[in-house]
Amino acid sequence: MKNLKNYIIRKAEKAKSASKKLALISTNTKNKALSKIAELIDRKSEIIISENSKDIKSAEKNKLSSALIDRLKLNEKRIHSMADGLRQIIELPDPVGKVLEKTIRPNGLKIEKIRVPIGVIGIIYESRPNVTVDSVGLCLKSGNCTVLRGGSEAINSNRILSDIICEAIVSSGIPAGSVEFIDNTDRKIISEMIKLSQYIDCIIPRGGEGLINYIRENSSIPVISHGKGVCHTYIDKDASLEKAIAISFNAKVQRPGVCNAMETLLVHKDIAKRFLPLMIKKYKDAGVEIRGDKNTKQIVKDIKSAKESDWYEEYLDLILSVKVVSSLDKAVFHIEKYGSHHSDAIITENSRTAEQFLKEVDSASVYWNASTRFTDGAEFGLGAEIGISTQKIHARGPMGLNELTSYKFVVRGNGQVRK
Amino acid sequence: MKNLKNYIIRKAEKAKSASKKLALISTNTKNKALSKIAELIDRKSEIIISENSKDIKSAEKNKLSSALIDRLKLNEKRIHSMADGLRQIIELPDPVGKVLEKTIRPNGLKIEKIRVPIGVIGIIYESRPNVTVDSVGLCLKSGNCTVLRGGSEAINSNRILSDIICEAIVSSGIPAGSVEFIDNTDRKIISEMIKLSQYIDCIIPRGGEGLINYIRENSSIPVISHGKGVCHTYIDKDASLEKAIAISFNAKVQRPGVCNAMETLLVHKDIAKRFLPLMIKKYKDAGVEIRGDKNTKQIVKDIKSAKESDWYEEYLDLILSVKVVSSLDKAVFHIEKYGSHHSDAIITENSRTAEQFLKEVDSASVYWNASTRFTDGAEFGLGAEIGISTQKIHARGPMGLNELTSYKFVVRGNGQVRK
Repeated sequence: MKNLKNYIIRKAEKAKSASKKLALISTNTKNKALSKIAELIDRKSEIIISENSKDIKSAEKNKLSSALIDRLKLNEKRIHSMADGLRQIIELPDPVGKVLEKTIRPNGLKIEKIRVPIGVIGIIYESRPNVTVDSVGLCLKSGNCTVLRGGSEAINSNRILSDIICEAIVSSGIPAGSVEFIDNTDRKIISEMIKLSQYIDCIIPRGGEGLINYIRENSSIPVISHGKGVCHTYIDKDASLEKAIAISFNAKVQRPGVCNAMETLLVHKDIAKRFLPLMIKKYKDAGVEIRGDKNTKQIVKDIKSAKESDWYEEYLDLILSVKVVSSLDKAVFHIEKYGSHHSDAIITENSRTAEQFLKEVDSASVYWNASTRFTDGAEFGLGAEIGISTQKIHARGPMGLNELTSYKFVVRGNGQVRK
Repeated sequence: MKNLKNYIIRKAEKAKSASKKLALISTNTKNKALSKIAELIDRKSEIIISENSKDIKSAEKNKLSSALIDRLKLNEKRIHSMADGLRQIIELPDPVGKVLEKTIRPNGLKIEKIRVPIGVIGIIYESRPNVTVDSVGLCLKSGNCTVLRGGSEAINSNRILSDIICEAIVSSGIPAGSVEFIDNTDRKIISEMIKLSQYIDCIIPRGGEGLINYIRENSSIPVISHGKGVCHTYIDKDASLEKAIAISFNAKVQRPGVCNAMETLLVHKDIAKRFLPLMIKKYKDAGVEIRGDKNTKQIVKDIKSAKESDWYEEYLDLILSVKVVSSLDKAVFHIEKYGSHHSDAIITENSRTAEQFLKEVDSASVYWNASTRFTDGAEFGLGAEIGISTQKIHARGPMGLNELTSYKFVVRGNGQVRK
């Protein structure tokens, strides 16, 4: 245990020390390093696949689900897509040094508020090895050092990817220590890591609810959580049937395994009889399992019953809970009570109703007549994202390069003293 | 203990429920409420003073220091100045609803990023009862509910001020529950309160280092810490002697008990012999105790020696540590090692040296040729402040109304689905 603690402290110390230098590195050098990482990843795809296959073999031996094994798996296509992701980050503007505000005070002090890196970011993640590359790419571009702690199931993949990253960055003039990979899968390392507030400025957990809650509750370092997405679509009585069907279908079916997919459909009672039979037929044809409340079941017979626990559930699968509500207020109440404040939509042609929904629903993204599936850094025009924050502090919604920065006040005077 | 827990949960629940309504309240209603609180505070100054005198009596009985008793004390002047503080907040623009960014995507989605309140803010504070009024004023204006937990030493003062606030806001149309005062000084309440992440969105601790560290380490709610200010002034070899003396004097002496006052003076060796004798004489005449390193003591004899622990110390008093350094790099190294990243200044006529300092020193506010005493919301033109953040997440430096908000993405479409 003591060795474990020393090990993680040494890693975090190195990152902290590198962060002072990395904060001052030019955009050009950072972009060269990103390009070098992309090049090496492309070139070394064979060895990446061979290391990844060790993880896949253990996963099969440990009887992990096929969905999980699929998320673990790297092939030529996925490897090139990681490299392309890095090339896209090169194209994004460097946030560091940007003047956010500028003012000259009556006493002549010139004050600038400028973006600076956060410093050292601890990424604690599970399964998908591409998180290693994506996180490093975004953190490096925004001038942040990373301490990476991936899950045991992807240890071989994460190790080879980190080795490649470190080889690339050091040869590109990025300070050694800018990317520190924790090559130890003992879970105790997490509890040590989240206490190192003197070295790590921020923890970003990416993974299941259990991991995220554990970190939120035990970290003495500020955490930016990427919580679950229990997203709703509310079909108002004044909805266009055509839009309601197209959007509800898209929000559930187009990619059910992601956090911005809809999990609960709320339907106003005055449109339920026209809408639900058509909609549920379309869902069933696509293989969606429907779990309805009692009013839904009166309209469409052969569906399962939703239990109270269903309303809290993030299925991440072709399953949908459906509830008939008597008013907009009831819909908003349901969303506030059971939702995760991620992404929620109203479908209506009535602009007053829409604006009330957009105002009253307290979620990171609120939609009028569009699919919740759009909650995404690229779709919002923010560039690549490190995740989608469901908290209100620091960053909310898609978190891109700007959200990986802090700021400082630079004050230039000519002898001013306070009266 | 169970009763204590139920008590704080009930308070926090009420605040959470009120926060949904308060977020939608108009600027006009909020300003009326602020004006009403100010009016009642002015009108009820006698009873406030009488309740405050109970706290002063206990403080004297418990032999608290005279500095602490002075901070506790309310008189007519201080009471009217609290009321005036509220009237100043009325004049500040309401941050809620402000459109921060606006974009139309190629698919026609109109995306707005708008400011919203954070929700419920827990304020945990010590001694000065004006924090009750100041915090409520800023939180109310930014649409946030507050759960207030003041220290036992000011319980009578805080209670009467909260009573007045609640009377004023409810009569002004602000939802009941928007300000919840914890009328219980058991310290266990703090440990319960900082776990209630389902009700409280953010904790702002204001007080001594011990309190703040305890909360940072144990809270499962995001914390915005207002840590200590170990502020430095570095006199470069190319400094103007006149500016160096005026600024160093102001930064230490003008108000030594606050976080932006200087605690350590760093002096380049090439200017030390000209600067230090003049400067230290001026300090001594003003009653400042000097603790110098060995090089300082070679130049000025009759001063105390600084110990290693002095460099970490926030004296908040007429005490100053002084060190001679051989280069800018050594000054930056000292500031990074011992400082608290609050406010640090360089005095020089050399713009290259100045810019290097401003870039390399990683503090919330960095100064060139000005006193660190300017780190303050009002001095920066941000209006009133709830404190000065020494962390990098969410808010850094003076924290005003804007920093008491989050944002949400409002997306308006006409049937868009994701491809």
